[in-house]
Amino acid sequence: MRQGRVVHGGAVHGCTPWPAQDGASEERVRLADGRVLGAHEVQWLAPFEPRTIFTLALNYADHASELAAKSSADQASFLTAQKAEPIVFLKAANAIVGHRGFTRRPQDADFMHYECELAVVIGREGRRIPREQALDHVLGYTVANDYAIRNFLEPYYRPNLRVKNRDAATALGPWLVPKALVPDPMALRLTTHVDGQLVQEGTTADMIHDIPSLIAYLSDIMTLSPGDVILTGTPKGSVDVRPGQEVVCEVESVGRLVNTLVEDWEPADLRG
Amino acid sequence: MRQGRVVHGGAVHGCTPWPAQDGASEERVRLADGRVLGAHEVQWLAPFEPRTIFTLALNYADHASELAAKSSADQASFLTAQKAEPIVFLKAANAIVGHRGFTRRPQDADFMHYECELAVVIGREGRRIPREQALDHVLGYTVANDYAIRNFLEPYYRPNLRVKNRDAATALGPWLVPKALVPDPMALRLTTHVDGQLVQEGTTADMIHDIPSLIAYLSDIMTLSPGDVILTGTPKGSVDVRPGQEVVCEVESVGRLVNTLVEDWEPADLRG
Repeated sequence: MRQGRVVHGGAVHGCTPWPAQDGASEERVRLADGRVLGAHEVQWLAPFEPRTIFTLALNYADHASELAAKSSADQASFLTAQKAEPIVFLKAANAIVGHRGFTRRPQDADFMHYECELAVVIGREGRRIPREQALDHVLGYTVANDYAIRNFLEPYYRPNLRVKNRDAATALGPWLVPKALVPDPMALRLTTHVDGQLVQEGTTADMIHDIPSLIAYLSDIMTLSPGDVILTGTPKGSVDVRPGQEVVCEVESVGRLVNTLVEDWEPADLRG
Repeated sequence: MRQGRVVHGGAVHGCTPWPAQDGASEERVRLADGRVLGAHEVQWLAPFEPRTIFTLALNYADHASELAAKSSADQASFLTAQKAEPIVFLKAANAIVGHRGFTRRPQDADFMHYECELAVVIGREGRRIPREQALDHVLGYTVANDYAIRNFLEPYYRPNLRVKNRDAATALGPWLVPKALVPDPMALRLTTHVDGQLVQEGTTADMIHDIPSLIAYLSDIMTLSPGDVILTGTPKGSVDVRPGQEVVCEVESVGRLVNTLVEDWEPADLRG
């Protein structure tokens, strides 16, 4: 069963999807007590409270080639190194926002782009997990939109906080989808639409390091625990997005995650 | 009042320091219900559950110079860049271990060293905090020993997971010390002893980016929240440490944190 989390009436509720009413298009959710609510009646949270959030850089062959074409010799050699070993960095709790959330475009951003990603949620603790047992440790999947602020990328792709750890820079949701509902996670279509226009399209089959490899790799370094989540990277197709635009990231069989960009505030708002 | 957390009789308890008995040297703690226990009767946890864990690289002038002397031209230019802007990375929850805990020396480590650090604990949420208000957001301080596995350092100091995010690689404790008990956090002596021998000595006065600057810097990027912790870097004096050695990191007015290195296990232990 798909599981989400929403706030309604001042409390957090688990919820499941519920079909739209005849003739209506509004998403609806069902709370555990049977109440069916429309999207306008709830605020979505991430479908679970993430523990450690791992993020893969440049894990899609087409996206890596896209960047390599524009890169210096230094960067090109780094892309080669990435094929030998995944580039993984961590995200802070403040970065997480739920379905239908708002993400500010920071004042210092010259180029900010979405990244549609399949997120893998760990359900069983493990250390030094062999590739062939890796999926036994997966609880399920969700969709991530992991915004990046490209103007702060460093030489050698140092994963600067300014690139990837702004408040609300990573949307997760809407659902935590049990793995039994996603028979082949390595053959899922990913798409991103900005204001209804298709801007990014790919397939999880193009990952350079696939899900079992990532789980084996990370668990060779450290213990993986329930609630840990791995954002597995994004295919090519990055365009700059602006306040007011709606960004919809969809992963086949997993979900359709909506986010809206808004203006950053003025510091005076806080310091007055 | 200094606050710690220990496990005793199958439950987690808050505790405070209690003087050793006359003629004895064993540390003692007092639980909230008045019971006084010896160190051998409890297991220490980190003194609080950290939320986001920020770690500073190369934030002491003497340590940066020590590394610069051994560096290539590329690395030297990176050290210059660090003076302009802090190098900050994040740590995963699995890395944290309490006072008197055990840290494995991983099988793939050629050079593993301790790092004695002053850890700053945030107590009040803030965004775009001015330097002059930064300390208003601090709850208190603790001691960190942030082990590093130097053989995985990347060009440009990419903060690879293998360097800094092994299980139990960051000891925190013993106490969360309220800031009122630490009148000047920028003038504290730090020392590390390995098996009783002094191997690292410095003062927080040598930080390149001081505590108010770090709080202002981070909160310009993202919201800081209660439970967030900033590990502020380490002075020079890194030697390789080996299983069986006891590492004691002490920060004046804050505490004395004990950690013991142990052998890594064989993968066969887990895969059998």
